[in-house]
Order: sequence, then structure tokens, then C-alpha cells
Amino acid sequence: MLTYDLTQRAQLSIYEYLYQCIKQDILDGVLAAGSRLPSKRELARHHQVSLKTVENTYEQLLTEGYIRAEERRGYFVASLGTDSRQSRHQSHVPFSAYDPGSDTAYFADFTSNQTAIELFPYDTWAKVMRGILSQQDPEMLKTVPFQGVYALRQSIAKYLYGFRGMTVSPDQIIIGAGTEYLYGRLIQLLGRSRTYALENPGYRKIAKIYQVNDVPWKYIDIDENGIQIDGLAKSGADIVHVSPAHHFPTGNIMPIGRRRVLLDWAEDKAERYIIEDDYDSEFRFSHRPVPALQSLNHNHRVIYLNTFSKTLAPSIRISYMVLPNKLMERYIQTMNFYSCTVSAFEQYALAAFMDNGYFERHIHRMKKYYRAKRDSMMKVFEHSRLRQYAVIDEKDAGSHFLMHLDTPLSDTELKWLAREHGVSLDCLSEYCAGGKEQHAHTIIVNYSDLDEESFGRALDVLMSAVTC
Amino acid sequence: MLTYDLTQRAQLSIYEYLYQCIKQDILDGVLAAGSRLPSKRELARHHQVSLKTVENTYEQLLTEGYIRAEERRGYFVASLGTDSRQSRHQSHVPFSAYDPGSDTAYFADFTSNQTAIELFPYDTWAKVMRGILSQQDPEMLKTVPFQGVYALRQSIAKYLYGFRGMTVSPDQIIIGAGTEYLYGRLIQLLGRSRTYALENPGYRKIAKIYQVNDVPWKYIDIDENGIQIDGLAKSGADIVHVSPAHHFPTGNIMPIGRRRVLLDWAEDKAERYIIEDDYDSEFRFSHRPVPALQSLNHNHRVIYLNTFSKTLAPSIRISYMVLPNKLMERYIQTMNFYSCTVSAFEQYALAAFMDNGYFERHIHRMKKYYRAKRDSMMKVFEHSRLRQYAVIDEKDAGSHFLMHLDTPLSDTELKWLAREHGVSLDCLSEYCAGGKEQHAHTIIVNYSDLDEESFGRALDVLMSAVTC
Repeated sequence: MLTYDLTQRAQLSIYEYLYQCIKQDILDGVLAAGSRLPSKRELARHHQVSLKTVENTYEQLLTEGYIRAEERRGYFVASLGTDSRQSRHQSHVPFSAYDPGSDTAYFADFTSNQTAIELFPYDTWAKVMRGILSQQDPEMLKTVPFQGVYALRQSIAKYLYGFRGMTVSPDQIIIGAGTEYLYGRLIQLLGRSRTYALENPGYRKIAKIYQVNDVPWKYIDIDENGIQIDGLAKSGADIVHVSPAHHFPTGNIMPIGRRRVLLDWAEDKAERYIIEDDYDSEFRFSHRPVPALQSLNHNHRVIYLNTFSKTLAPSIRISYMVLPNKLMERYIQTMNFYSCTVSAFEQYALAAFMDNGYFERHIHRMKKYYRAKRDSMMKVFEHSRLRQYAVIDEKDAGSHFLMHLDTPLSDTELKWLAREHGVSLDCLSEYCAGGKEQHAHTIIVNYSDLDEESFGRALDVLMSAVTC
Repeated sequence: MLTYDLTQRAQLSIYEYLYQCIKQDILDGVLAAGSRLPSKRELARHHQVSLKTVENTYEQLLTEGYIRAEERRGYFVASLGTDSRQSRHQSHVPFSAYDPGSDTAYFADFTSNQTAIELFPYDTWAKVMRGILSQQDPEMLKTVPFQGVYALRQSIAKYLYGFRGMTVSPDQIIIGAGTEYLYGRLIQLLGRSRTYALENPGYRKIAKIYQVNDVPWKYIDIDENGIQIDGLAKSGADIVHVSPAHHFPTGNIMPIGRRRVLLDWAEDKAERYIIEDDYDSEFRFSHRPVPALQSLNHNHRVIYLNTFSKTLAPSIRISYMVLPNKLMERYIQTMNFYSCTVSAFEQYALAAFMDNGYFERHIHRMKKYYRAKRDSMMKVFEHSRLRQYAVIDEKDAGSHFLMHLDTPLSDTELKWLAREHGVSLDCLSEYCAGGKEQHAHTIIVNYSDLDEESFGRALDVLMSAVTC
């Protein structure tokens, strides 16, 4: 019986540790391809852990392709391809190098979509915060209105008018500690019995939130213009999530024609709403951002969400949503007892930061930075051998692009090969619930954390994926 | 038909404005006692507002006693007593004076339980924040671990050891933007199909949160020692909320005997938990705080919650919970994708604030302040005429006490009379779901916002309640 010493897990959760151990034994050939794993229940009982822990472990190994499931027979170690097995035996890399959680093992990390924190305007932010605190204003210590500090809502309304073409009142805005928090509020506001529609492929975390909240949801396929309306109409969903300015992860922009059809769908039935997640619309390089969907809809069926995590820093937890008047009235009647989740000091500081023009200046610097980075990545690509075997799909926006690769490998094998050679990457198919085949062989390249040298080396690594 | 011009409502919500208008007409005698109000549906249709809006308006007027409901006949203006009606006609106070939302109309507000913000250590907090920001540490800009910044969890664990007798690891702690946020997380963690038990009387906001989350809950009566275990056992609930260090609003402390029985109840069945809300345990004047319930239970069935809202300021949104290991493991497996909702800067600042001893020093100052305030309130009471007709129930802790009044008035009439004369107060019965009669005639006096002069005047106002 497979046995691992759980006392050796240090800071890892049990699930994470078991996953590591089993994966390592598979890579080392200790668990031979085709051999059968213990049942989940047997393994759980043997290690005296919960069944759920082992379920999660097997699920992860299954998702990554290390094991496969045969109905009613159990779980078996997958064959990972002859070449791979050979290189496994040859290069016995120490266990820690395979830790998916640690980034020291990779020289290039395509998955890191951290905001470019080296650009954070520390001096300016500190100056503004100092100014706020030195006022020693007792008002700033009192319970914050449930919608958030008025000064910040005012600054945001002004910003939305100037940059997103939206005419909204500060009274339509609710400030919250992160977009996920606001999604939770929306579930309570719109109701748990409605069906929510998500784009496929799309941002998977939203599905997790709906799942944990016991809310029904459906995936709707997208095409190059965004969510497909006939699929949406057939789904029976009443609320749909979209990111029309910059779809994640494809980067597609929803053209005006599709926007109009989507708005028509919403207006076609009472209580239908569109949640517009505008998370990184500020980073459009060559043109002005496309006006928000909300600005086309006269404040009725579009709930607009945005965040400062991508523009400032993910550690400053400030997001906001703009509600149609009718929904705001409902919020006030049913949910206004919830205190605002963002500290007053930071709200006043952000309001002052925006009112003094620092935010606009900072966005400008970040755009320049991302654009220059994007340009240098393209140059590296143009000079690499890989350019014969790959096509870059880049939308002149955000901080990632797609790379379609001409390779016979499956996405799981591709990931594994890259990881084996120090490159961490995600494939587009991982963001698909179903229909993975049509989105296969496409890598998502987040470049905000890459440099030219490591990107070039990573492209060389990928050569072994196309020439094998 | 009653008609109001809704365009005049300015910043008020429609529900708030209608409530004001109708109440004023009642006070002015425009709506005579005994006259019938339009049905809710008629009023809603006439003003083209939602039925829910008018339901809320009528509910508020009913709760405050301005109208009464007769089954199947409708709503009627209440009689408010001969004296009151006469004084209403005589002293035509301008509309704004009756605005329950505005505190300028009251010379004494017994309901305000704002933390004593004049004590906020602005200079020290600013100094600590300056130090944090000047480090310009890029780590502070990255996504915060879902549990919160480690340094703060460490400081909190140390604090809990020294001041609440709890031995917990930083890894058991989750930091969140306010206690309400953490309640929501707990609902997801513990499950929506469990029944939650709340103390009656108790903190009503928790019930609202359960209601909005579609979670079943029950009220369990308390006695002078806290929640009654036989009632709890019969309720079928598996999770119970208690504040054993200082019950809200009675102020009772749960003695060790009841604590043991409560812990036995929890241990008696798998998946039973006690949520211990320790919200203001720091403010015990003469003795050390009673050790937390959690410290008696060896980390198994007690979920401990606390906040910095009462000790620092309600506008700094930092609360935390300590989970038993098994629940933390479940949290990691099912909910660790939620980002932490508190800004990194403020977490690091608070950790430094605690590590430098500033927090302990601040608590000490606040205790001194509250104790001195309590003492002066008692002195004013002892010298007032009201002392023959009232008994103070004070528990040497927190920032409020109870006052039992020897009065023939109902609690609604008492509130109205006080309000009419510039005193805003809440009665204990308002915190009761059922069983209001046994808790009648008891006023809750929050004194952190009172001064001796206004308290004395307020006691004189209450004389008219006892001698009428």
C-alpha cells in the first residue's frame, strides 16, 4: 500500500504534500505507467486523512495528466510518452524542483500575472497617505457609509466619465475589498435561484465562487467576438458575466455589433443583467479604451465592476461596482447593514491620489511600460527559431498574449515538458470547460514578470515541443 | 389619497423619505389618530414605487408605534397619548428635528456605540504607517496570502496568548475586512444546510446576515448566565453564536459552569461548533478579562472571532478568526482561492503597531477613559432624581450599561417620549425576538459619546416617563 510520511510535510497542506509525493513517484518510475493506484477510500483510511483530501489529490493528478481514471476500475498511472520517461530517468531532478507552488525552480514563469509592482508610486502614495493622516480628522475614524467614502465615489465617478464614457452618480457606486467580495454581494442581491452564465473559456475563479455559494451557473461558448448569444439564450441564464473590453484569457474585444445583441438579450426579459468586469481596460496601448458596455445601456441592465488591483497593486484591496438605480434601491433596502469593507484611510488616500492627477499619471507610465515590454517580447520572438512553428495572437492590450504552437504534444505533455525544463506555463484549454480540443496547443504568455533573456531561453525550450 | 413629492427627497432613499413625511403628518395631526392609511399597494401604485419600498416604510412606522395594524382592516394612525398630542400642537418643531438619521436633533444619544475616537493614536499610527511605506518593500505589493499577512497573524497569536489565554498557531488565523465578512465565510465553510442558533436577546445583525444568505437560524433564550442549553439542545441547531466575555446587549459574562455545559453540548455531536465573538473583551475594568471559551476547548469546537473596530476605530476594517485545525484544512481545500480582503499596508502597519507595544498602551488608555466615564455617569445618576425610579445594571466592562426603569409606559411610548425631548435611546426589548415583555422597561445606555451634563439632562427627561 502506498505510504507517505505526513509529518514531513512542513508548511504544505496534506493534499498538496500527497500530490507531490505521488507525482514524484510517477516521474521517477517508482509508480510504473499502467499500475493501479489505491482507491481513494483506501488511501484516506491508510493515512488517516479525510476522503476529501485524497479526492482533491487525485483530482489534481488527473487534471495534470499524471493519472487516468477507468470507470469502475479505479485510477491508473498514465503513460507520459517514451522520450519523457527516458529523460526522467536520466535527469533526476530533486523533489523540490517540481513544487508547483515554488517559483524558484523556474527560470521563466508565463503564468505570473502580477501587476508590475516595480512601478508602484511608493513616494507619491506615501506622501498622499501622510497628508491624509496628518489631518487627524475624526470623521475618518467613524463607521464608513456602507457604500464607501463619498470622496472616493466622487473621484471614481469622475474617472469613469472621463475614461470609460460612463455617466454615473457617486450614489450608484459601492466600494468593496476586492472584486470577489463584490461578486458575493451580487449573488445576494440578484438571488440564489437565478442561473448565471460564464464565458467559456473564461476566468475560472468566478465558477468557484458560484459553486461555493451553491448558485447554479452555466458555461457559454465564445467565438472571436465574444459570448455567443444563441447559446446564452438557450441556457436559461438571466445573468451573464462578460469582459467586453479585454476578454480573459483570449484578450478579445467585443465589437459593437455583439454588444448591441447582448444588450438586446438583457432587455428582452425583466430581471436580466449583464455583469461587466472591466478589470484591465486601462491598458490599451495604441487607442483609447473601447467605451464600457455600461455606457451604451443608460444605467439599466449593466452592472459595472472594476478594480485597482491591476492598476495600483493587488495588495491594495479596493474594487467597486456601479449599480443601476433599481438595484441600488434594492441593495439599500435589503443589504445596507453590511459595513463597508475598505479602510477609510485608504479610501481617502486613493481619492486624493486620483484628484491630484497621480492616478492618471501612473496609468500612463504603466501603459508605456507594458507596451515597451510587449514590443521587446515580440522582437525576441521574431528572432527565435520558434517563429516558424508558432503564431502570436496579441491584442495590443493588457499584459498577456496567446501563442498558438504547431506541436503534436497534448497540452498536458506540453506543460510537463516545459516544467521539466524550468518553464511554467498555462494552456488556454485549461480555461475551457469542455471544448478543450478546439483550443488546444495555445499557450498563455503573461509577460509582466518576464525579461528578454528568460523569454528567449523559454522559446528555445519550446522548440523541443515542436520538433519532437 | 396621501401624496408626497418624491423629487424633494434629496439624498434620502424613497423609503426613508416616505417614512419622514408620514411621521411628520402624524405628529402634526394632519393625519389624525385613528384615521386609516392607504393600503400599501395603493400607496405604492400612486407614487409609482415598488411595493417593497412601502412595506419597509409601514414596517418602520409600525415598529416605532406611529401606526398600528388591524388584521384585514389595514393600517391606522396610533394614538400617542393626550399630553404628547398637546405638546405636538404647541411646539411645532421643524421637520428636520425629527429626522432619526440626524444626530443634531438630540442633545443626548444613548444609542451611539462609536469607539471613543478622540483617543485614536493618530501620531503613533501615522508614524508606524510612514515606517512601513518608507521601506518601499515590493513584497508588500504582491497578492496577500488568503489568510492574511503572516507578520500580523503572528502578532495576533502572540496577543491572544498573552491576553486571552489562547495557544494558537498563526496558521489557524484568517484575517478579514470586518466581522460580518468573516460570518459570510463561515456560512460557506460550515454549510448552508446547518441550523445556526443566536442568543435572544442578542446582536440582531447576525440574524440579518443569515436571512440574506438563506440560512436557517433560531433564537435561543438566555438567562443571567447566558444561553440556555436545554433550549439550544431542543432547537436542532448545530452552530451557536455566543459572546461569553461580554454579552451584547445585557453585558453578562458567562460563568465557567455554563461554559463547560456549552462545550459539552458541542462535543456531543460531530460537526457542532461554537462561534465565540469576543468583540470587546479588552474592556474589562477591574479585573483581567475572563479567558476565552476557545482556550478551554483545545482548539476543536470553538471558532474564535475578534475585531480591531472597537479597540482602534471602526473605519480600520480589520477582524480575524481562529479556526480549529480541521476547519482550516477544509477552508484551504475549498475556499483558499478567495484573496485576503485587507490591504497589505494596513496589516503590516498593525503588526508593527502591536509588536512595538503601542496597541497594549492604547488599550490601557481606552480602559482608563471608559472607566472614568463610567464612574462619572454613575455619579450623575446617584445625584439625579431618577435614582428612586431606576436601577442600573452595570457589569464593569465595555462601554454601555442597562437601566431598568419603573415606568407604566410601553417601550414604544418611552422611546417616543425621549425622542420628543431630544434623547435618542434603544430599549432592550428591541433586541428580543419574542419574549419582549420580560425584558421591557430596560434602556441600553451607551455612554462613550455622552458627557455628564447631557446625561444629567437626559435623566431629567426620563423623569416624565416615571411620574406620568
